[in-house]
Amino acid sequence: MQHYPDSILNVIRQISKLPGIGEKTAERLALHILRSPGPQAEQLAAAIRDLKEKTRLCSRCYALSDGPVCRICADPRRDVTRLCVVEQPGDMVALEKSAAFQGLYHILGGVLSPMDGVGPDDIRVRELLARITAENIVELVIATSTSVEGEATADYLSGQFAKRSVRVTRIASGVPVGGDLKFVDQVTLKRAMETRRDVG
Amino acid sequence: MQHYPDSILNVIRQISKLPGIGEKTAERLALHILRSPGPQAEQLAAAIRDLKEKTRLCSRCYALSDGPVCRICADPRRDVTRLCVVEQPGDMVALEKSAAFQGLYHILGGVLSPMDGVGPDDIRVRELLARITAENIVELVIATSTSVEGEATADYLSGQFAKRSVRVTRIASGVPVGGDLKFVDQVTLKRAMETRRDVG
Repeated sequence: MQHYPDSILNVIRQISKLPGIGEKTAERLALHILRSPGPQAEQLAAAIRDLKEKTRLCSRCYALSDGPVCRICADPRRDVTRLCVVEQPGDMVALEKSAAFQGLYHILGGVLSPMDGVGPDDIRVRELLARITAENIVELVIATSTSVEGEATADYLSGQFAKRSVRVTRIASGVPVGGDLKFVDQVTLKRAMETRRDVG
Repeated sequence: MQHYPDSILNVIRQISKLPGIGEKTAERLALHILRSPGPQAEQLAAAIRDLKEKTRLCSRCYALSDGPVCRICADPRRDVTRLCVVEQPGDMVALEKSAAFQGLYHILGGVLSPMDGVGPDDIRVRELLARITAENIVELVIATSTSVEGEATADYLSGQFAKRSVRVTRIASGVPVGGDLKFVDQVTLKRAMETRRDVG
């Protein structure tokens, strides 16, 4: 690797810091960028440079945004009376891809985890309480993950809203669609059985 | 994917132009860069920006270099009487990794390929002839690849030097070290048999 000049070594070193990219792949990518026509390398460099500068958090829901308010919060077609609580911006993107929810989001930025010293003040619970009060929310959908911490956070949040006039719901957990029962773990199967519902 | 702000989409788009990187991986890398601490994104962007600006070709051997003369040509410990001809800079790096050659290199920048309209004037044959004359070379090792074009180029070059007082050699081709004969193609086996040598 030391047989390359510093300008190439530097790119290889920087690229191989990325997750899942080893030195061999970084070498291949660096040589590709070097050979790439015209402004492509410049565009890539500029996009990376702008990434951290231009990306910030939506002042309303704390999603990733490049303006003061994110696209979803700014969209007049969204149902502003429903709020979906998720852990991270990526969870919001996953839900948006499913197109199953038309309301707004609230990104906690984490989950309650007493073992790691993360309490309600360390995630955006206070901001959530303020929004519920200020924004006339009628339904709060808790979509934290189904991990132990995600479930504990969901329990904590539903407790916080028990005395308010807001409907609190939790996304269903159970057997994934298209999933073969043989390959589903027992805890999920137990949950799916317990939360079975009437059909037809 | 359209659920991300433009600053992130732009990086995803640029990264997914790289070979072997799909949209999912690009998304993962972009979010990693966004989360990366401190100056890491800036360093990556700067390295990519510098790559094309600072990398040029060695004026002597045409290897990738960040100075007027590459490291190998500038190294006083190299054997300046032996010259190894390769197709591309990457071939030189591969040979350097093997540490089997102590001389200097000459990068052709391609192979003869009449089908694609590439003749001796399109690769650095003239520069090679000039070096042989000017630099008192005693051995020319032809290390073009063992493809049809690489072999044709090797034949052409050895013909060019037939009347000169320089020794012209060709790297051996045959069964790869550690290779199982069962998995070696017939042409390679035929070559290995034809170029067998006395041992012991």
